[in-house]
Amino acid sequence: SKRHTITLLPGDGIGPEVISVARNVLNLAASIEGIEFKYQEVPVGGAALDLTGVPLPEETLLAAKQSDAVLLGAIGGYKWDKNEKHLKPETGLLKLREGLKVFANLRPATVLPQLVDASTLKREVAEGVDLMVVRELTGGIYFGKPRGFGTNENGEEIGFNTEVYAAYEIDRIARVAFETARKRKGKLCSVDKANVLEASMFWRKRIMAIALEYPDVELSHMYVDNAAMQLVRDPKQFDTIVTNNIFGDILSDEASMITGSIGMLPSASLGESGPGLFEPIHGSAPDIAGQDKANPLATILSAAMLLKYGLGEENAAKRIEAAVLDTLNKGFRTGDIYSAGTKLVGCKEMGEEVLKSV
Amino acid sequence: SKRHTITLLPGDGIGPEVISVARNVLNLAASIEGIEFKYQEVPVGGAALDLTGVPLPEETLLAAKQSDAVLLGAIGGYKWDKNEKHLKPETGLLKLREGLKVFANLRPATVLPQLVDASTLKREVAEGVDLMVVRELTGGIYFGKPRGFGTNENGEEIGFNTEVYAAYEIDRIARVAFETARKRKGKLCSVDKANVLEASMFWRKRIMAIALEYPDVELSHMYVDNAAMQLVRDPKQFDTIVTNNIFGDILSDEASMITGSIGMLPSASLGESGPGLFEPIHGSAPDIAGQDKANPLATILSAAMLLKYGLGEENAAKRIEAAVLDTLNKGFRTGDIYSAGTKLVGCKEMGEEVLKSV
Ligand SMILES: CC(C)[C@H](C(=O)O)[C@@H](O)C(=O)O
Ligand SMILES: CC(C)[C@H](C(=O)O)[C@@H](O)C(=O)O
Repeated sequence: SKRHTITLLPGDGIGPEVISVARNVLNLAASIEGIEFKYQEVPVGGAALDLTGVPLPEETLLAAKQSDAVLLGAIGGYKWDKNEKHLKPETGLLKLREGLKVFANLRPATVLPQLVDASTLKREVAEGVDLMVVRELTGGIYFGKPRGFGTNENGEEIGFNTEVYAAYEIDRIARVAFETARKRKGKLCSVDKANVLEASMFWRKRIMAIALEYPDVELSHMYVDNAAMQLVRDPKQFDTIVTNNIFGDILSDEASMITGSIGMLPSASLGESGPGLFEPIHGSAPDIAGQDKANPLATILSAAMLLKYGLGEENAAKRIEAAVLDTLNKGFRTGDIYSAGTKLVGCKEMGEEVLKSV
Repeated sequence: SKRHTITLLPGDGIGPEVISVARNVLNLAASIEGIEFKYQEVPVGGAALDLTGVPLPEETLLAAKQSDAVLLGAIGGYKWDKNEKHLKPETGLLKLREGLKVFANLRPATVLPQLVDASTLKREVAEGVDLMVVRELTGGIYFGKPRGFGTNENGEEIGFNTEVYAAYEIDRIARVAFETARKRKGKLCSVDKANVLEASMFWRKRIMAIALEYPDVELSHMYVDNAAMQLVRDPKQFDTIVTNNIFGDILSDEASMITGSIGMLPSASLGESGPGLFEPIHGSAPDIAGQDKANPLATILSAAMLLKYGLGEENAAKRIEAAVLDTLNKGFRTGDIYSAGTKLVGCKEMGEEVLKSV
């Protein structure tokens, strides 16, 4: 039997609840498939701040690096909102991504037939949406230097950041995106602002260079403002989208809301080698934390991505995905995806129902 | 009778068609209200490139600066898409904004009861949306230096831009936004990415400082990724939004698509003094240019904004707005907003119908 070490990072808010449920599901699927897991649970974000005074303790990063895959719940909360930058929970997440060198963030946005009415978009617009945003995660304006506060040549106070991409950073995310598109419907849309920004012109140039390696993938380019519109107008036109860190942050959240079921959406962050980072795309939802109301399905589906992309355990991954669909088909719903005629359950009960179907 | 000089910039694609129609409407409304206009028509964008070799000839900027208000059609087209940066039509528009120092871009997104079904959002979500995006237009990453191409310390090729805001730039757009909110429902939401970017932390700090001057306006802050989601989830929660140049570009386009009638939406760009720049938010639509299919209402409503915000001619502005509503109530629709049971008309006929109601 195969053995893998998994780092669990429950984090803040609803993080611990959804991680505990996802761990049970992961366990069951693994044991059926003859996989053995060793877990190590370490603090990150606000939880780490409270315990150790920093949002990413060295031990946490080390544990994560030395494991085979990392499953994160959520980070952040009102309590730490006013903290200085280096003491923000978010800074812990950014340092974790940087430390694990997970430059490729895969964010699927799929409208399940069972949940099409959860979208604020009309049924005929939402039905059948199935897109993947490939977001560059360790470069661009999130990490670019110089950055900070200062004064300009007129002595005026300023705040500034640098949007910068090197060729190798674009090339490697481009390859992940082309490979992803190839496994999907073979269509890749690169989103930039090349009519204004040099960083985007360079981005487009490199994307076009890498495209030569993938003649079977149909490549198009779109400006980010237009992409934000097209996601609302006709999201079905998209298969795979590749874009930079900040545009990917904005567009993947927009795309996820278009599905209407943000409590359902997982994500995977991958590097060249080393462990991947898997997390639901929803936040820590401090308003419902500890009330057994959270939807654990996004974390359960993140565990499925962990099995598939992180460990190459396709069968166990499919088992979990099927169990989630089965549970939805039986009518079980947490509050965020509830509609008349379905069965309202809490976080734990949803987990138990999924376990029955694994 | 009052006299004003108006600079008309038809630009590219459908620009000339919609400007010609809007000019007739402007004329009629003005003459009824006892206002006299002198027009000067000058080239910008691709049209200027073809005529003079540059996208913003000096004469065009000078004419615009010396007039009382500027009405622009649209710029850009496939023909110039591959041009180098300084020879792009878009560069002409950016230089025009910079030259006129119009730092405040007002972009209303309103769902008219007559057109609620044009939105891809469900009726109950779209109905009653009435928000205003106040976008900073002459700063941030669009204009920040250093910018360009080069190599990093490892000799790798890079492309880079600088997101930078000085206190005075934030303060002045904040004041425009607070004043705008005050005249609307008194709610202002400032959108930034202050959990990651120093430029955004500084933005938030200045917004909060200026807020002290407007205790009657209810201020909130939202991260840009969340704002992109909330616009899809529940656009009615917003009254006035203030944000930087690039986030404003993305969010205002998203908001406009949420209304479903992007062919209806005007915009105003204003400076401290000097002429304002008024333009529809739609693009040059090269695919339908010259076919009498364009919707002229966004440009007609931009002319109304020109009267109101640019010249202080409230009565003439209201006359035009009422005429547009009247024309919609009579059932006239261009192709982009057509639905069964309404009367399909072209650009010119739509203009003639509006004239009947002025
Ligand atoms: C919490 C924040 C730093 C983060 C980001 O901006 O990347 C989040 O919005 C996300 O998308 O994972
Ligand atoms: C054409 C382009 C330069 C422009 C911008 O990005 O500002 C446009 O998208 C707009 O929003 O007016």
